[in-house]
Amino acid sequence: MEKIKPRTLSGFMELLPRRQMQMERMMEVLRRSYSLYGFTPLDTPAIEASEVLLAKGGGETEKQIYRFTKGDADLSLRFDLTVPLAKYVAMNYAQLTFPFRRYQIGKVYRGERAQRGRFREFYQADIDIIGDGALDIVNEAEIPSIIYRTFTSLGLRRFRIRVNNRKLLTGFYELLGLTEKSGAIMRTVDKLDKIGPEKVKLILTEDDGVSAADAEEIMSFIAITGTNAQVLEALERYRGRSATFDAGLDELNTVVGYLSAFGVPEENFAVDLTIARGLDYYTGTVYETVMLDHPEVGSICSGGRYDDLAGYYTDRKLPGVGISIGLTRLFFVLEDQGYLNDALLTAPADVLILPMTDDMAPAISLATRLREAGIRAQLYSEKKKFKAKMAYADRLGVPYVVFLGEDEISAGKLSIKDMRSGQQITEETDAALAFIAQGLAAGSGGCVILDRE
Amino acid sequence: MEKIKPRTLSGFMELLPRRQMQMERMMEVLRRSYSLYGFTPLDTPAIEASEVLLAKGGGETEKQIYRFTKGDADLSLRFDLTVPLAKYVAMNYAQLTFPFRRYQIGKVYRGERAQRGRFREFYQADIDIIGDGALDIVNEAEIPSIIYRTFTSLGLRRFRIRVNNRKLLTGFYELLGLTEKSGAIMRTVDKLDKIGPEKVKLILTEDDGVSAADAEEIMSFIAITGTNAQVLEALERYRGRSATFDAGLDELNTVVGYLSAFGVPEENFAVDLTIARGLDYYTGTVYETVMLDHPEVGSICSGGRYDDLAGYYTDRKLPGVGISIGLTRLFFVLEDQGYLNDALLTAPADVLILPMTDDMAPAISLATRLREAGIRAQLYSEKKKFKAKMAYADRLGVPYVVFLGEDEISAGKLSIKDMRSGQQITEETDAALAFIAQGLAAGSGGCVILDRE
Repeated sequence: MEKIKPRTLSGFMELLPRRQMQMERMMEVLRRSYSLYGFTPLDTPAIEASEVLLAKGGGETEKQIYRFTKGDADLSLRFDLTVPLAKYVAMNYAQLTFPFRRYQIGKVYRGERAQRGRFREFYQADIDIIGDGALDIVNEAEIPSIIYRTFTSLGLRRFRIRVNNRKLLTGFYELLGLTEKSGAIMRTVDKLDKIGPEKVKLILTEDDGVSAADAEEIMSFIAITGTNAQVLEALERYRGRSATFDAGLDELNTVVGYLSAFGVPEENFAVDLTIARGLDYYTGTVYETVMLDHPEVGSICSGGRYDDLAGYYTDRKLPGVGISIGLTRLFFVLEDQGYLNDALLTAPADVLILPMTDDMAPAISLATRLREAGIRAQLYSEKKKFKAKMAYADRLGVPYVVFLGEDEISAGKLSIKDMRSGQQITEETDAALAFIAQGLAAGSGGCVILDRE
Repeated sequence: MEKIKPRTLSGFMELLPRRQMQMERMMEVLRRSYSLYGFTPLDTPAIEASEVLLAKGGGETEKQIYRFTKGDADLSLRFDLTVPLAKYVAMNYAQLTFPFRRYQIGKVYRGERAQRGRFREFYQADIDIIGDGALDIVNEAEIPSIIYRTFTSLGLRRFRIRVNNRKLLTGFYELLGLTEKSGAIMRTVDKLDKIGPEKVKLILTEDDGVSAADAEEIMSFIAITGTNAQVLEALERYRGRSATFDAGLDELNTVVGYLSAFGVPEENFAVDLTIARGLDYYTGTVYETVMLDHPEVGSICSGGRYDDLAGYYTDRKLPGVGISIGLTRLFFVLEDQGYLNDALLTAPADVLILPMTDDMAPAISLATRLREAGIRAQLYSEKKKFKAKMAYADRLGVPYVVFLGEDEISAGKLSIKDMRSGQQITEETDAALAFIAQGLAAGSGGCVILDRE
């Protein structure tokens, strides 16, 4: 029979077992973290009617969309989790309770040009809080707390959540009389990290049509840095010249003010006047999250406040605030940069049982007992030499191997090898199980991410 | 702005929050159950190269496949999790450890004709154990134990795992000299449940070309019932006439013999000589699982032993045994038949905090404290009347509401309402948190499935 070469498409992540276990751990932490904040899980189809998915139309993404027909249906794979959320909320409005807090971890599809670290199928992990007509600013203050808890639960330490406010920016350009040029200006300012201040200033005056004096003003505005208190104080000097600016500053004050009550340390949070994000969409607080030791990675968790989630489906005003983690790309970066904690227990079982008798019943009963005690147990039932069996245990990385021979069975004992310490004991079954349970409780090797202090 | 009507494609399950929470609980139970048996999680792309996915070619499924092009790539959505597993194992053979035990819970796609209870996108929850060249029969004996633990952990009680052995069947038709007709005969016998014995006998003689005497033999063979011991004993009378039959009978004896050591009660398990399953694929033990009160649903968990997982990708002999649960359809049936336990806690939070002061800091600190204690807490920050806030708590179904006004804050106390009992207490913060933690530990409303005893 002629063989087909098995392969996985480029741009599609497919992990080996140990790595997959780390990925699962990450998802578990995300689910747990989002749940602690009262978000409910959602799951929407990967395929939608193109008409529905592309209701907003146009844009960069449209070319990347996987679109096809089946029978006479025009279908598309979802390219994010926001449009499906908008559809869901508009469609189920009467049956939902607002504010509606949902999380969704799911695969999305974009047919981007293949390159290292870019994926065509990737997980997004999103949370959103949707209000019915209105949504209190406290929700915007809560988001950094969720980002902080999520990343620290994963084990990441050296990261910073950058926050800005779109009203503040809009108001600032308004008070300079630059409202019409503000879109172009913000796009230019957004490049500051990449091209530096000199280049930004040049583009502002030469391409964006900003006067030298205004460019000076813009440069000194985005140069405002320091502690959050210092930045907020510096911003006070612009107060009173634009109602929009003042509203944005009030919001920013509220968000920063509630930080410590939300348990976010000052060092993981910074007001940053240079970030703007999704120009057409966000209207209030905006967020980015950067790894301090890898700024080149860009933002690993971004989002913001928007006023109109589902305007292309419904007349209802549905404001919200949300953030998204590009999980597949984050995982790639973590692996690539050596952040994944390889001390994490990634074995498929806690205990591998090696039966040394022909009758497997005693070994099976032991496996059943371990499983009933919540211990992940695998029975090794292949007919192999002892050495091959131990090599199997080694390759899987199981923490404990139990040997069960005639001697142990007749004495009602178990011989256990702790594969990590090399220690081997023979004990009455109860004591042996306690030994294993204790060892497992002592730790599964820490968090999935291993970051320096 | 003209609105697009938001809709979800027919044949695609999209649940409201409470139902979704039940679905998540089911997946959590499956993940936990599979993990206890030492299976490692895998995740493969939903899209594969058509050439790879359709390597096996032909068959009923091919028409149902979502196939499309993107650029010059010919792509298909996976229609099961077995072909991607075969690809994965063939591709990563050198880096895997055999026996390789993996579970995968993922969406698959089949463009079937839309009808009630049929889905075009649905979750399959699969486990497989893959051997390298050989795989011991004990693995086949373990499978019913996994099925049993999984369904009982979900809360299902009235189900039965039916088991047969393909060697036994092949051997039986061999000893009757009906090997060439055995495919057609097995397909006919498979209809026994639906059309009854008279009709089966008629088709055997009139359509399948079986003599009246042989049909008699077949009918009396498939009529063998009773306890497992009785069935096995009755089968002994055929021993010695076909090596294949004898091997099958030995295997069946082994599988049944280890049942009680594997913790499977006799009443949840039955040797059933009428089932055959996937004629071209399975070669040893085969499994079906039926709900005793809803036989019309068919099998809710099926699978079996196969000898050649990945023959279209590799020359390596990769035998295995696996089962699959059609999770989306199962969920649909459970909901439809009233099996879903609506007493299950499906609220997005354990505690809803209602701040009664303008300064939200004390309420935020409380939320942070609850979350740090592992209690799912939501802050209600919208400016609404008290009645609207309580209605929100009611609609979410949260078990506890905490009121935090000036009085409580200055006294260092919390007022808590247990929404299930109606009981309201005001206590020092520590005692109040203990009250909540105790109430939550007392239970989250039981299993996701509520079956009668």
